[in-house]
Amino acid sequence: MDMKPTLKDCRAAYSVLQKVIDPTPLIKNEWLSAQYGCEVWLKLENMLPIGSFKMRGATYKISKLTAAEKKRGVLAVSAGNHAQGVAWAARKFGVEATIIMPEGSPLTKIKNTESLGAKVILHGASIEECFAYAETLMKKKPMVFVHPFKDIDVIAGQSTVAFEILEQMPKMDFVFSSIGGGGLVSGLGTVLKALHPKVKLIAGQAAGCSAMVDSLNKGKIVANDKAETFADGIRVKVANPDMFEILQDVVDESLTVDDHKIALAVLQLMEKTRVIAEGAGALPLAALNELHRQDPKRFKGKKVVLVICGGNIDVNLLERIIDRGLLESHRKVRISVPIADRPGTLHLLTGIIKENGANILQVIHDRDSVGTGITGANVLFTLETKGPVELKKLLARLKVDFPQCHIID
Amino acid sequence: MDMKPTLKDCRAAYSVLQKVIDPTPLIKNEWLSAQYGCEVWLKLENMLPIGSFKMRGATYKISKLTAAEKKRGVLAVSAGNHAQGVAWAARKFGVEATIIMPEGSPLTKIKNTESLGAKVILHGASIEECFAYAETLMKKKPMVFVHPFKDIDVIAGQSTVAFEILEQMPKMDFVFSSIGGGGLVSGLGTVLKALHPKVKLIAGQAAGCSAMVDSLNKGKIVANDKAETFADGIRVKVANPDMFEILQDVVDESLTVDDHKIALAVLQLMEKTRVIAEGAGALPLAALNELHRQDPKRFKGKKVVLVICGGNIDVNLLERIIDRGLLESHRKVRISVPIADRPGTLHLLTGIIKENGANILQVIHDRDSVGTGITGANVLFTLETKGPVELKKLLARLKVDFPQCHIID
Repeated sequence: MDMKPTLKDCRAAYSVLQKVIDPTPLIKNEWLSAQYGCEVWLKLENMLPIGSFKMRGATYKISKLTAAEKKRGVLAVSAGNHAQGVAWAARKFGVEATIIMPEGSPLTKIKNTESLGAKVILHGASIEECFAYAETLMKKKPMVFVHPFKDIDVIAGQSTVAFEILEQMPKMDFVFSSIGGGGLVSGLGTVLKALHPKVKLIAGQAAGCSAMVDSLNKGKIVANDKAETFADGIRVKVANPDMFEILQDVVDESLTVDDHKIALAVLQLMEKTRVIAEGAGALPLAALNELHRQDPKRFKGKKVVLVICGGNIDVNLLERIIDRGLLESHRKVRISVPIADRPGTLHLLTGIIKENGANILQVIHDRDSVGTGITGANVLFTLETKGPVELKKLLARLKVDFPQCHIID
Repeated sequence: MDMKPTLKDCRAAYSVLQKVIDPTPLIKNEWLSAQYGCEVWLKLENMLPIGSFKMRGATYKISKLTAAEKKRGVLAVSAGNHAQGVAWAARKFGVEATIIMPEGSPLTKIKNTESLGAKVILHGASIEECFAYAETLMKKKPMVFVHPFKDIDVIAGQSTVAFEILEQMPKMDFVFSSIGGGGLVSGLGTVLKALHPKVKLIAGQAAGCSAMVDSLNKGKIVANDKAETFADGIRVKVANPDMFEILQDVVDESLTVDDHKIALAVLQLMEKTRVIAEGAGALPLAALNELHRQDPKRFKGKKVVLVICGGNIDVNLLERIIDRGLLESHRKVRISVPIADRPGTLHLLTGIIKENGANILQVIHDRDSVGTGITGANVLFTLETKGPVELKKLLARLKVDFPQCHIID
């Protein structure tokens, strides 16, 4: 089965989608531009109604169904964005949608999918079990299966993001995107290579889930059943051979980025561009950061587009990312202070913290701590500080009265 | 001094700013639209280079300076967005900028302003002391003072957001904005009332800092020196008489919203629109929510624009807002469980938590808790749950073995 759409296929998809999906913004960010010495533009696919590019492919696929097929309804397997994409598109065309999700999927994703009118079936522990169940189900009821990426129409649908970018900015030097199954990059690359062959397409995966990038870099499919990343939108175990073939043609360079750096990119997008990206959506920034670190001159004066492909990230995960970022930048800090366990000592300590403008978030006063001696105690503070300079001043002052105090990492 | 710009003044500002500031996106949000039974559009001023509309007024003001004035440099007083607006604009036109900020201003704001090339002077504890110091300073060195709102050019600059909205969407029914000093709403209203008189302009303030709204609602200036809100962008104590006069003309309705509801709006914008807004930027959503609650039919089928005026909010504040939101929606919960203090009890307890899919964030095991009896202890868990349904199941199961367990609010 040939799954690579031609430019004509992609154009056909764009002419359909233009009528139902508003173009997403392409915005230049000054802070990132200054940081990397180039023009950094963000293509905000997270601003789409379902918060992810996935609705493009699903919408085009469903738009092309015959009346008879539409009547049969559509079936999809997904733990996340594809579920919402199919549900959104099915509702748009008045088609019944059934989505199989793994048991234990996040409640917000189940709810979001249901609120778009789809029927959600929870089945099995993994996405693989859901796929198997989909086959069983289709034998009973002949619904049309909408694959998340291995489908010529789905790929043509995803390609429409490239037409939008080219209309918004006719010339650019680099486009960064992320690879899950490979549908987005296949579509993007097909159009870019045809209409703007000079542009370099750089694609990334999470280091803990890198089957496709490993395969692209070796020039052949690499078995790799790890799938460990918080970026659930690109947590795909296997490099599909059909997708591999397309990507080999259109991707100029591919790399992996570890979760820690993806998380920092999520935080940087929040702080510097006021945009919420999920892991998969922030990966292109992490990839730019990595390549810039390797060769700072490479992007100088260039126009770089980062495809922020989605923004569906749970707020509790965001909270952890923020927390980690605050700890790393020492705006939040944990300090251990061994003290003499007698009245007034904690008061002295809190007085010093107050004078230095730090805010106490938590205190654990521990008399059983080993190493404090029989008449001592250990006090563990979590503090909010204004920054490294203030923290240094606070520590210097603390050491006058409590020479053993220190930061805990 | 007449500070109200005419439509012609505003058009002049727009023709200048169009050349230096890209229009910000106006995006329809499907989730909010469904929630309020109308079309909800977000005007994303937080996507501007400095993350706030303030650069519009500052840029127009500085663009109009004579060569001699430019040579003298500009001076401004601000603890936040206006500082960055003036710094950005001054750099654009090659003018030296000096900004006076209160001592103890957040380090990020100081750094952001300095990174735009401005000289920052920290002085005094309040913005009022900074204004006084500015006068002293200008006697020594005759810089041009750029007022944050009480200036006809600054207001004309802020008005340009209205031209953009009208170009992006020629007809609408309601525009919601927030009032700090009143510059944005004055500009917005001047243009809207002239070009699209049918639109209703609704403006809000934080309940803890409501001098202007109280004045508008009483038809005369009300003294009110409270200024308590986390929304620092609109923390302005006094209703300026000149601004009051303009706002009386252009604002159709004004209201206050309390901080708790503004915080919920910040969280909702994060979760449902993938956009980071500061308190002042999220206030229009809180105001729509409040008016919709009072009269759900009022907005039915209407086109509503929310001006998301800024997105400069510290991530540690965002973290608290998320945390509060998770606690309120019971996705994060604190449970107190009185137990018999004997080996194995905590193990039984953690087993039940595990079986019910909740995640433990913190445990405090307290043997000194009053009311647990001499052989008992109290265990306080902070848990992450999947939602209210899962929490209910967990609690029911816990009560079988630990009948006294309960949620702590």
